[in-house]
Amino acid sequence: MRKRVNNLFFGDTKFAGVFEKLVQILIFISIINFTIQTIPDLNPRFNQILNTVEFVSVIIFSIEYLLRFYSAVSRIRFVFSFFGLIDLLAILPFYLSIGFDLRSLRAVRLFRLLRLLKFLRYGEIMDKLGAAFKEVRNELILFSFATLLLIYFSSVGIYYFENNAQPDAFASIFSAMWWSVATLTTVGYGDIYPITIGGKIFATIIVFIGLGLVAIPTGLIASTLTSALKKD
Amino acid sequence: MRKRVNNLFFGDTKFAGVFEKLVQILIFISIINFTIQTIPDLNPRFNQILNTVEFVSVIIFSIEYLLRFYSAVSRIRFVFSFFGLIDLLAILPFYLSIGFDLRSLRAVRLFRLLRLLKFLRYGEIMDKLGAAFKEVRNELILFSFATLLLIYFSSVGIYYFENNAQPDAFASIFSAMWWSVATLTTVGYGDIYPITIGGKIFATIIVFIGLGLVAIPTGLIASTLTSALKKD
Amino acid sequence: MRKRVNNLFFGDTKFAGVFEKLVQILIFISIINFTIQTIPDLNPRFNQILNTVEFVSVIIFSIEYLLRFYSAVSRIRFVFSFFGLIDLLAILPFYLSIGFDLRSLRAVRLFRLLRLLKFLRYGEIMDKLGAAFKEVRNELILFSFATLLLIYFSSVGIYYFENNAQPDAFASIFSAMWWSVATLTTVGYGDIYPITIGGKIFATIIVFIGLGLVAIPTGLIASTLTSALKKD
Amino acid sequence: MRKRVNNLFFGDTKFAGVFEKLVQILIFISIINFTIQTIPDLNPRFNQILNTVEFVSVIIFSIEYLLRFYSAVSRIRFVFSFFGLIDLLAILPFYLSIGFDLRSLRAVRLFRLLRLLKFLRYGEIMDKLGAAFKEVRNELILFSFATLLLIYFSSVGIYYFENNAQPDAFASIFSAMWWSVATLTTVGYGDIYPITIGGKIFATIIVFIGLGLVAIPTGLIASTLTSALKKD
Repeated sequence: MRKRVNNLFFGDTKFAGVFEKLVQILIFISIINFTIQTIPDLNPRFNQILNTVEFVSVIIFSIEYLLRFYSAVSRIRFVFSFFGLIDLLAILPFYLSIGFDLRSLRAVRLFRLLRLLKFLRYGEIMDKLGAAFKEVRNELILFSFATLLLIYFSSVGIYYFENNAQPDAFASIFSAMWWSVATLTTVGYGDIYPITIGGKIFATIIVFIGLGLVAIPTGLIASTLTSALKKD
Repeated sequence: MRKRVNNLFFGDTKFAGVFEKLVQILIFISIINFTIQTIPDLNPRFNQILNTVEFVSVIIFSIEYLLRFYSAVSRIRFVFSFFGLIDLLAILPFYLSIGFDLRSLRAVRLFRLLRLLKFLRYGEIMDKLGAAFKEVRNELILFSFATLLLIYFSSVGIYYFENNAQPDAFASIFSAMWWSVATLTTVGYGDIYPITIGGKIFATIIVFIGLGLVAIPTGLIASTLTSALKKD
Repeated sequence: MRKRVNNLFFGDTKFAGVFEKLVQILIFISIINFTIQTIPDLNPRFNQILNTVEFVSVIIFSIEYLLRFYSAVSRIRFVFSFFGLIDLLAILPFYLSIGFDLRSLRAVRLFRLLRLLKFLRYGEIMDKLGAAFKEVRNELILFSFATLLLIYFSSVGIYYFENNAQPDAFASIFSAMWWSVATLTTVGYGDIYPITIGGKIFATIIVFIGLGLVAIPTGLIASTLTSALKKD
Repeated sequence: MRKRVNNLFFGDTKFAGVFEKLVQILIFISIINFTIQTIPDLNPRFNQILNTVEFVSVIIFSIEYLLRFYSAVSRIRFVFSFFGLIDLLAILPFYLSIGFDLRSLRAVRLFRLLRLLKFLRYGEIMDKLGAAFKEVRNELILFSFATLLLIYFSSVGIYYFENNAQPDAFASIFSAMWWSVATLTTVGYGDIYPITIGGKIFATIIVFIGLGLVAIPTGLIASTLTSALKKD
């Protein structure tokens, strides 16, 4: 019986394929639903519809969980498996919010995002990516360390150049780090930037070094992943 | 007779070559004309000149259309072909605007831009690009999906970090998405950025992941196109 | 006699080597001098020193010009050669400014910058770069055209989305082009950006397409130049 | 005796390994300590703890220095070796600050950062990087020179276009250089940007040339380092 349920819903049958697609669509709807609910001052009636969609989603996810639990070869192993925990965490907040009125606790709603991880169950994308990353792991660690060092050095430098001229913006080395990140990644929001001549010259040198340093690991991963993806 | 007209205007003759060049130049003039007309408070007399240029362009495009229509092997097939429809849509708005006074409807004027697509008739650029893109299609879909996921995750994250501190800028996850796009592409307009310590640390992590993620498909297309273009 | 002068100053002798170095250093000083003179409200005495340096530079450049003219095999050919014209244009403005009081005409001072081109006389860098660029010329033209098209399309698009909401910033398609350039190159000054939902979605699509489009020719030149530079 | 001390602390023994790790951790703590002390208005009691940590660090670093000095084969050579000087400079400011009350001189505290260089003693990372950089040295110099030239040319150009419209922002060519750097690296803080039509067109051309120019050496180093790192 157990085996037949497992085969019917999660096996290689046509019905299992339809069921899989349905769950995927529901995950998608559930995430969209969650996103829309963050909009402030929603029409109360529209909000009610969203709550209903959320309610139905949780019911179906719960049924899926129970079916997986019931049909698992080893139930204990399922509950503590990666996907077993994800599936549980994705529905638990809803039930807890009924009993304990956690609805006000916004952070709990974030657990719903874990449903996105349910997608990992499908597809072999992750295997490929994982293999490619493992290949360049050492180089990545090396350059991550170098990038951290550069961020730190440039933060200390810009702090000493700008602290006197802009004591609020460059209040401490920690504040200066935000400048380093925004500059070395070339995002440059414009909320913080050097105004002294020394600071500007220092920033110029740092950003050119940074362009090279950030480009190297990026190019490294890109070339490794490219060759890995082209293999198959 | 039909065949002779087709050969004369659209065949391999010297006259056809001159006619082709003339139509191309007219497309160019017509687009420039369209662009200039968007400038507010134009000198009325200058505006009248622009309208005249537009009028003459439409007349010539109409003659070209009628010639193509007349000389086509299968007229019905021509009308519903890709270029037949483009040619029609590029002149139709003008005639409709006389009968129905659509001139006020600015969006209709946009159809004139379709004339740019007429350029596709000439040159084999598109074939090459199309072939190169087909080659990396699967990888592009994969990384587009990953990029969308990263944009979504970073939007949710920054929303939770910044919503309390900046309830207007980060009003909902949708508002936060604009931040994610501007940051992950390193455009960084500076209209929206994190101000909390948590948000800044989160942004730092996200932007470094994003630099790699955006660089990979970019590098992938670049290398594939490069090798495709170097082949010939 | 002519030949001996040519050999002494511009030949393969030790003296010619020292003379060459001296002229190079003088070009450098002259450019620095020019740059400093743009600083507003300079100390009058310091300004006088700068003027003297400029005066001495012009005298020496004039002597160099006369020596080259005197010792040239064909004097007419020298005067109308590339470097002959550069050398003349680099000193002429100074003499004209005495007779006609052109000193007030700032643009004329820009000719002094041409002295930088005198550096081209020395070194074979330009040959290498020129050869590499010739190799990728067709691809560069193709992508420059594609980039121009993308800039135009995105300008028209953003104009239609934002013109109503921001009639000043996005006054015409020409104003919108500045946004396109700042966005597609990811500079993002923050002086102009979309505020409507439609404009933001449009900008998102455009910037991701643009990242790829700009990266391809960049990568193309980089790889071609890299292989060209590694050959020798 | 000397030899035994050297072997015990800096040799291949298990104790030396533990001692090395300890010193590394202490360097890390000392740097964090230094960073936190730049935060303004620290709790006086917390500040005292930080000062104590700094005091203990210096004592241990001093003991390490004395041990290295005592056990060195040639003591004079050790004192004037690269690491000998680093080790000394990293502790000297502390002792000087007692005698001469240099504590107020913030710049002296920067010497503490030199402790980071002590990390170089460990690991062979620097050898690899150094070798890779030596390989592309000539190309790096070439493109650094080209980048400097482009920055200079674009600064002069934008100065002439914008100086009249924005006499404060583009006060001299030196001010314009800051714009060039922020634009060519695509950081684009938004503190300085062209507003005239001529300046915007000039900026457009410059930024596209700059994207290519900056990308070439970046790609060059990246590809050389990548192949160098993949070798082993």
